[in-house]
Amino acid sequence: MKTAVLYSGGKDSSLMAVILDRLGYDVELVTINFGVFDSTIPARQSAENLGFKHKVLRLDRGILDDAVDMIIADEFPNNGINHIHHMVIEYLADEYDVIADGTRREDRIPKLKQNEIQSLEDRKGVQYVNLTGIGYKTINDTSERLFKLQKAQSNIHNSSDYEMEIRVLLDEKGQSINEIFPQHIQSRVIGWK
Amino acid sequence: MKTAVLYSGGKDSSLMAVILDRLGYDVELVTINFGVFDSTIPARQSAENLGFKHKVLRLDRGILDDAVDMIIADEFPNNGINHIHHMVIEYLADEYDVIADGTRREDRIPKLKQNEIQSLEDRKGVQYVNLTGIGYKTINDTSERLFKLQKAQSNIHNSSDYEMEIRVLLDEKGQSINEIFPQHIQSRVIGWK
Repeated sequence: MKTAVLYSGGKDSSLMAVILDRLGYDVELVTINFGVFDSTIPARQSAENLGFKHKVLRLDRGILDDAVDMIIADEFPNNGINHIHHMVIEYLADEYDVIADGTRREDRIPKLKQNEIQSLEDRKGVQYVNLTGIGYKTINDTSERLFKLQKAQSNIHNSSDYEMEIRVLLDEKGQSINEIFPQHIQSRVIGWK
Repeated sequence: MKTAVLYSGGKDSSLMAVILDRLGYDVELVTINFGVFDSTIPARQSAENLGFKHKVLRLDRGILDDAVDMIIADEFPNNGINHIHHMVIEYLADEYDVIADGTRREDRIPKLKQNEIQSLEDRKGVQYVNLTGIGYKTINDTSERLFKLQKAQSNIHNSSDYEMEIRVLLDEKGQSINEIFPQHIQSRVIGWK
């Protein structure tokens, strides 16, 4: 079973990878890039430090452009980010048998709805897995126990989220980034404890 | 962190236990009994064969009686089974720090809703985990790979589900059990592969 875990270098996607690995899946971590800015370095480093196979998947920049247009029109990032996530999952479903991401119980965006998961699995003959059964407290406790974490204000040099290339494009278009993406602290996985 | 996994001896609850164990939790499997019929033997055997700690928790028979009254009034088991599950989780939340069950993505009953999980975690200061992020195909594949399974028509001698003591009480009350609980094939975990 060819298994991809969408990977940002954060604790959620790292934990998803660890669970599948410890259940015997041959996990490949996959980080998405659209060719605007190489936001994949943090994820590549985290993957290497954890000892997982890792791949950067370069997808059509049009997906990112569409998302940025949506975000500018909405003055809000959710629909744009969700658009990217859905396009990415659809792409992966043609290449892998099992697709996973680090979506957890409280996450709203990006997230596949129950009927979207059912449709994806039926149309593409794949299996989709996420962390919806686990809440943030359990993920935090488990991550603190398993991983060395680096906590810092999220910026384009320490995260491989979709958000990073969106920020670069918004900036090029003269948009005020910090109103759309408020500053937040993020935990990056930098190795095993 | 004192961790309980509600345990029936089936593949869902076994997989939940394996995931938490492999993430470093000190797992205790817990099987519920209401003193009507000892339905716990299959779960005790499965737990022993997998090498997990196991405990039978005897709860107030009134919970089971209420559930059976609901099932007879509804002519349908769902509300009664959900009633038991909610009472059991509330009880465990006073005794453990982390509570888990084998509810998976497609399950409807018994299942805690998102707002019920939030309320439980906030009121009781506990963490609740289930398999909602995983679908039946992935659970089947993983279980086939990890466990020796025994597939058979579900009956009071090969399952420790809540259903078994409900069946005994319904029978005592002269109710037609097979209309309320249609026959189904169930997979019991009988050891590691």
